[in-house]
Amino acid sequence: MKPVKRIAVLTGGGDCPGLNAVIRAVVKTSIRRYNVEVVGILNGFHGLVNDVMIPLNEEAVAGIVHRGGTILGTTNRDNPFRYAVEQNGQLTFEDRSEQCIENLRKHAIDALVVIGGDGSLNIAHQFHEKGIPVVGVPKTIDNDLSATDYTFGFDSAVTTATEAIDKLHTTAESHHRIMILEVMGRYAGWIALYSGVAGGADVILVPEIPYEIEKVCNHIRARNERGRKFSIVVVAEGAKEKGGQMVVQQRVEQSHDPIRLGGIGQDVARKLEMCTQMETRVTVLGHVQRGGSPTSFDRILSTRYGSSAVDAVMAGYYGHMVALRTPRIEPVPLTEAIGTLNNVDPEGQMVQAAKSVGISFGD
Amino acid sequence: MKPVKRIAVLTGGGDCPGLNAVIRAVVKTSIRRYNVEVVGILNGFHGLVNDVMIPLNEEAVAGIVHRGGTILGTTNRDNPFRYAVEQNGQLTFEDRSEQCIENLRKHAIDALVVIGGDGSLNIAHQFHEKGIPVVGVPKTIDNDLSATDYTFGFDSAVTTATEAIDKLHTTAESHHRIMILEVMGRYAGWIALYSGVAGGADVILVPEIPYEIEKVCNHIRARNERGRKFSIVVVAEGAKEKGGQMVVQQRVEQSHDPIRLGGIGQDVARKLEMCTQMETRVTVLGHVQRGGSPTSFDRILSTRYGSSAVDAVMAGYYGHMVALRTPRIEPVPLTEAIGTLNNVDPEGQMVQAAKSVGISFGD
Amino acid sequence: MKPVKRIAVLTGGGDCPGLNAVIRAVVKTSIRRYNVEVVGILNGFHGLVNDVMIPLNEEAVAGIVHRGGTILGTTNRDNPFRYAVEQNGQLTFEDRSEQCIENLRKHAIDALVVIGGDGSLNIAHQFHEKGIPVVGVPKTIDNDLSATDYTFGFDSAVTTATEAIDKLHTTAESHHRIMILEVMGRYAGWIALYSGVAGGADVILVPEIPYEIEKVCNHIRARNERGRKFSIVVVAEGAKEKGGQMVVQQRVEQSHDPIRLGGIGQDVARKLEMCTQMETRVTVLGHVQRGGSPTSFDRILSTRYGSSAVDAVMAGYYGHMVALRTPRIEPVPLTEAIGTLNNVDPEGQMVQAAKSVGISFGD
Amino acid sequence: MKPVKRIAVLTGGGDCPGLNAVIRAVVKTSIRRYNVEVVGILNGFHGLVNDVMIPLNEEAVAGIVHRGGTILGTTNRDNPFRYAVEQNGQLTFEDRSEQCIENLRKHAIDALVVIGGDGSLNIAHQFHEKGIPVVGVPKTIDNDLSATDYTFGFDSAVTTATEAIDKLHTTAESHHRIMILEVMGRYAGWIALYSGVAGGADVILVPEIPYEIEKVCNHIRARNERGRKFSIVVVAEGAKEKGGQMVVQQRVEQSHDPIRLGGIGQDVARKLEMCTQMETRVTVLGHVQRGGSPTSFDRILSTRYGSSAVDAVMAGYYGHMVALRTPRIEPVPLTEAIGTLNNVDPEGQMVQAAKSVGISFGD
Repeated sequence: MKPVKRIAVLTGGGDCPGLNAVIRAVVKTSIRRYNVEVVGILNGFHGLVNDVMIPLNEEAVAGIVHRGGTILGTTNRDNPFRYAVEQNGQLTFEDRSEQCIENLRKHAIDALVVIGGDGSLNIAHQFHEKGIPVVGVPKTIDNDLSATDYTFGFDSAVTTATEAIDKLHTTAESHHRIMILEVMGRYAGWIALYSGVAGGADVILVPEIPYEIEKVCNHIRARNERGRKFSIVVVAEGAKEKGGQMVVQQRVEQSHDPIRLGGIGQDVARKLEMCTQMETRVTVLGHVQRGGSPTSFDRILSTRYGSSAVDAVMAGYYGHMVALRTPRIEPVPLTEAIGTLNNVDPEGQMVQAAKSVGISFGD
Repeated sequence: MKPVKRIAVLTGGGDCPGLNAVIRAVVKTSIRRYNVEVVGILNGFHGLVNDVMIPLNEEAVAGIVHRGGTILGTTNRDNPFRYAVEQNGQLTFEDRSEQCIENLRKHAIDALVVIGGDGSLNIAHQFHEKGIPVVGVPKTIDNDLSATDYTFGFDSAVTTATEAIDKLHTTAESHHRIMILEVMGRYAGWIALYSGVAGGADVILVPEIPYEIEKVCNHIRARNERGRKFSIVVVAEGAKEKGGQMVVQQRVEQSHDPIRLGGIGQDVARKLEMCTQMETRVTVLGHVQRGGSPTSFDRILSTRYGSSAVDAVMAGYYGHMVALRTPRIEPVPLTEAIGTLNNVDPEGQMVQAAKSVGISFGD
Repeated sequence: MKPVKRIAVLTGGGDCPGLNAVIRAVVKTSIRRYNVEVVGILNGFHGLVNDVMIPLNEEAVAGIVHRGGTILGTTNRDNPFRYAVEQNGQLTFEDRSEQCIENLRKHAIDALVVIGGDGSLNIAHQFHEKGIPVVGVPKTIDNDLSATDYTFGFDSAVTTATEAIDKLHTTAESHHRIMILEVMGRYAGWIALYSGVAGGADVILVPEIPYEIEKVCNHIRARNERGRKFSIVVVAEGAKEKGGQMVVQQRVEQSHDPIRLGGIGQDVARKLEMCTQMETRVTVLGHVQRGGSPTSFDRILSTRYGSSAVDAVMAGYYGHMVALRTPRIEPVPLTEAIGTLNNVDPEGQMVQAAKSVGISFGD
Repeated sequence: MKPVKRIAVLTGGGDCPGLNAVIRAVVKTSIRRYNVEVVGILNGFHGLVNDVMIPLNEEAVAGIVHRGGTILGTTNRDNPFRYAVEQNGQLTFEDRSEQCIENLRKHAIDALVVIGGDGSLNIAHQFHEKGIPVVGVPKTIDNDLSATDYTFGFDSAVTTATEAIDKLHTTAESHHRIMILEVMGRYAGWIALYSGVAGGADVILVPEIPYEIEKVCNHIRARNERGRKFSIVVVAEGAKEKGGQMVVQQRVEQSHDPIRLGGIGQDVARKLEMCTQMETRVTVLGHVQRGGSPTSFDRILSTRYGSSAVDAVMAGYYGHMVALRTPRIEPVPLTEAIGTLNNVDPEGQMVQAAKSVGISFGD
C-alpha cells in the first residue's frame, strides 16, 4: 500500500449539526498528527463528479466546531453511480463513477473520507468495491444507522425537539389543550422517542409501533379524569395507524411533495380533536431540527469521529466506517452499517421505560 | 372611594410568556407594599362567570417568575357579555356580566386586575363602564396593542422565532435552498418583522405590506446571481398578496380550522419554488412561540407591569391600563389601548432599516 | 459640505454582543441605500493611529448578524490623544490625533463611525472638535451611557446573568444555601438590577445604593423564618458598603489587577456566611457576560443603530450619536451622551418595583 | 423474600440536573408498573436519620422532568454511620444507622433507592451490608463513578461549561486575550476535557495530567506566531502542575474555604500573563454547573435510571446500582462502583483525539 499523502473529504445527504466539527477534526488530525494534506470536495458527490475541490488547511477550519451546517455544502441528490442528466428535456441516469475516480487521481488523492448517512455510505461502499480507499463517518439526525451506538447530529435534533416540547407544555397546561408536535423520522422513530421521553410527552407515535387512535384517545381521556387536562403528543413523520398506511408514504408516492406539511400531525390532530372534544394544535418543526449549533455531545462525537476517521485511513481500514462502541470509537465494515436500518425496538428497554413512566404508544 | 382590601386577578386570551411574572408581582406588591389580599380567578373570564377563585399568597407565587404559561389558566373564549350557552344542542349567547359582578361582591373584591390582549381588555373596559374598578395589563405576543411601547410576551416570541431562523440559516446555506418560516401575526406583522431583522432574513412578508410574489422571486434570483445561493423567508400568518386575499382570512371564514397549518407558508413556498426552481422547505412554528420561559426582557417588563398595576389600583386609576412609555410605566385609559391596532408602519423607521440592510418586503 | 463617498467604521473599548450587527448594517446601508464605500479600521483607535484598514463589502459582512465579538477587533487602550509609547523602557503619552487625521485623508475617508462606550465616544467627540465628521453609536454592556434608552449589548449581558441566576436557583433551593453571583457593573448597577429582577433574586447590591451587611443578613434571616431556606444575592462588581469603600476601587488602585477575582463577591459571601451561619457559594461570571450571540433585542437595536448611523452621516449630523428614544432612533449631540453616567436611580420606578416584589438592596 | 409494597427514595450529595427526572421515574414506575407505594426522604440521609419523609404520588412528581435541583432536597453532610452531633459546643461523631433502619421499619419500607455519588453510594453499600434492601442510582456531574458509561448530570454540566467557552471565544478573539475558564472537577477532569473539546479550547488542564506551565506558554506563543492571537484555557479545579501540588488540595487543607475562588484559575492566569505578556481574564463558573434544566440526554438517562432502579428492586438486585452499559441499563454490584474513581486516561482515545485537533494538556 502506498503511503497516504493527501486525503479528500466530502459531506453527503441532508445536513446536520456536527458536520463542521468532523471536517475540522479530519483536517487538523491529518495535518498535525500525520502531516497529510486535505482537500475538500464541495456539495457532496456532485463536487466529486464535477471536480469541484478546494484545499483545506487549518485556517479554513478555524472556529467552526460550534457552527451548524457544512462549510463544504451538501446535497441529497447526485449519486455518481446513477447520475441524473437532462437531455432534450428528458431525465436519464448515467454511471459517472469512473469520472469521479479520474478526478481523485488527477488531484493525487490517496483516500476519501465520506461523511454521510445510509445513502452516502452506500455510495462510499460502491467506490470501495471499485478499489477506492474509502472511510465513512456515520451521520444522520435520525440515528437510524446500524453498527454504531449513535450518529452525530441526533442529540442536537433531539435537543431541538425537546425544547419545543418544553415550550408546548406551558401553553398546553394553560389552555387545557392537546398539543401535537410532528418531528422528523420517516422510517425510524428515535427523535420522537427520545424527545418525547425527555420532554415528558404523554403519547409518542413512531413508525415501528403502529397505533390505534382509539387507544390514544382513551389515554388522553384517562388523563383528563385524573385532572391532567392537557396532553402532549409527539408524532414521527413516518408514524402509521395499525392496519393503515403511513401518511408520509402516501405523500412520497403522490409526486414527492415535500412542501405539503404536517400530513400525519394534522391527521392525528383531527382525529384526536374529534374523539376527545379538546382543542388541538399542531406544530411542524421541519428543518429547524437539522440546524443550529451542535450540542456539546455532538461536537465531541463529531470531533472524535473526524479524528478517528483519519486514524482509520492511516491504519488502512478502507471500506470501514468509524463507529461509536461506547466508550470507544472503532472501525467497522461499511457492510455492517448499510442495508439494515437501526429501528426502535418495541420491546426494548427504552420503550419499556417510556411505558413505565406512563407514556402511551397507542398500541 | 372605599379603601381597597382585596384584589382579584385573572389572565385572559392566549397564554404568553410572562403571565406568571405579572401574577407574582401583583401578589407580592399587594401583600408587601399595601397589605392587600389577592384572589386568583381561574381560567380567565370563565372563572369569573362560574365563581372559581383561589386565594393567592406569597407561597403560591414563589419560584414562578421564570415559568411560562399561567398558574391561573386562561381561555380564548367565555366573554361574560356574550357567554356561549348550549341548550338543546343549540348555541346561544347570554350576558352573564351581572353574575360576574355578583361573584366579585360575594368575595368582597374591591378591584380587578385583568391581564390580557385586545379582547380581554375590551371586556375589562365594559366592566369598568358598569362600575367595576378595573385595571388592565397589556399582554399579547403579537405586540399589536396600541398605547404601550411593548406588550410582554412579544420579546419571548421574537426570540423563539429568531432561534428558528438561526437554525434554518445553517441548513439553507448547506443546501442552497429557500427556507420559509411561518410565524404568528394574524393582523400585525411585528413578530415576522422583528425576528426577520434579528435573524438576518432575506424576505419578510407582513399583513401591513401586501406583497407581489414576482418581486420576491426577483429578490431571491438577484441574491443567487451575487453568489448567495439560499434565502430565508419569514411569513406572518396574516400576510397577503397584493390584490389578493389574506390566506388566513379565508381560513377563518372556512369554519375556523386552526388545525389546518401552513396556509400562507405553503402557498408562498409553492409559488417561490415554481418561479425560482429552487428547493423550498416550510416550518410552521405554531404554539411553540407562546411557550417557554420568558426572556429577561419580558420578565422585567412583566414584573414592572404587575407591580404598577397594583400601584394603579391603589391610586384609583380605574378603567386604565399600565403601559410602557419607555423608560416609565404609566397608566393610560383603556379606551386608548383598545379598538385601534398597533400595526407595522410601512414607512416607519424599522421597515426602512430592514430595507437598508437588504431585506425585501415584496412591495 | 462635500458629498460623502467613503465611510470608515471602527469598534472601540470592551467588546459586546451586537458589534457585528452594527458593522453589517453600516456596510449594507452605505452600499445599498447610498452607494457609499466602507472601510473598516482594525482594532479600534489602534488601527486608526497605525493605519490598519480593510475595505468592507457586503460579502465581508454576510452571515455575521448573530455572531458575538467584532470582526474588526477592538481594544480598551490606545487613545490617539494620549497614545502610550514605550521609549527606553519608559512609558510616555503622545498626541497622535494628527496622524489619525492624516490617515483618514490618505484613504479619502469622508466620515467616521465610532462604535463605542463613554471612552470611545469621548475620543470621537475630540475628533469632531478637530473638524473630523464623526457619528457615534452607543455601545456598552453596562447601559451606563446617558442620552439613550438602551445601549446594545446590555440586553445580552442581562440575559447571560439571568440564565446564571436561574441555574443557581435550583441548586440553592436543593441545598438551603446562599448563592452569590458577581456581575459586571463598576459604576452603574444596571446588569445586577435587571438580571436580579428577571431572575427573582432576593438581594441586589449596586454601586448606587450603598448597603449595610446587617440589613442583608436580616432580610435573609426573615426569609428563613418564612420557610424560604435559600437566598440568591446578585452583586455588581462596584457595589459598596455604606460608609465603606468600593472594593473594586481599592482593587483598581492596587495596581490594576484584573485577574484578582471576586473581590466584592467573596467579601459579601464571607460576611453573610458569618452572620447567617448558612453555607454560601460564589460565582464570578466575568467575561462570559461580554460574549456569545446577541439576543434578538440587541440584534435589532444594533441593526437599527448601524443603519441610522449612516443616515446620520448622510444628513450631516456630525458630532452626534444615534440614540434610542423609544420607539425612534434619533441623533443626539455627543456632548449629551458623554460626561454624565446613566446611573440607577435609587428612587426610580425600577428599584421601587424590585422592592415591591420583596427584593432587598441592603439599604 | 417478602413482596415489596413500599419503596423509599432519597437524593444525597451535591445536587445535579436530572435528580427530579429520576425521582419522577421511580414514582411513576413503582405506581404504574408495580402498584407499589413510594415515600420520599427529605434532605438526603439527614431525613433518614431524623425521620422526615413524605408520601410521593404521581401528582407530586408531575411536570418536574425538566426541572433542575431536587424536590426532596439534599445535603453533602450527614453520614448516618458517622453523624455529626454537637454537644457542649464540641463536635462528636455517632453511628445513627440503627436509627435509620428503625425509621425504615416504622414506615414499612421494603426497599430504599439511593440516588447519589461515590459518598452516598458508599453509605448505601453499608446499609446493604446491614441487611437493608438498597438499590443505587449513579449521580455526579463529575462523571467520576466507575462501572457506568455515564452518570446523569454530567452532560448538563458539560453543556453549561461549553456555552461559557463559546461566549469566551468571541470576546477572546476580539481582544487578543487569554481567557481562562475554571470548571468543576476536583479529582477527575471529565468536565474540563469534554467541554474543552466541545468548545474548541486550546489548552485543557486536568488533575490526571500534571502540566508544565512552560509548555502551556509555548503552545500559546506558537498559536500567536500562526496568527491566532487569542487562546482559551479550560482548567479543572483539581488541575496541578507537574511536581507541584494541587492548588485545590492546599485550599482544602487550609481550613475548607469553599468561598475562596479561582485558586487554580488565577494561578494559571498570573503565570500565563507573565510568560506570554498577553492580557488574561478568568471566569469561575462555580455552582452554575450544577443548576438549570437538564439536557435531553440527561433527562433520558435519568428517566431510564429511575425506571430501572425500580425494576432492579422488584427483581431483587439489592446491593446493586443501575449502570449504563450502552445501549443497556444493567444492575452492577455497588462494590464495583465505589472505591475506585473513573479517571481520565491520559493515553485514552479521548485525550488522543483532543491532541490530534491541536489541544495542549501542558504535558
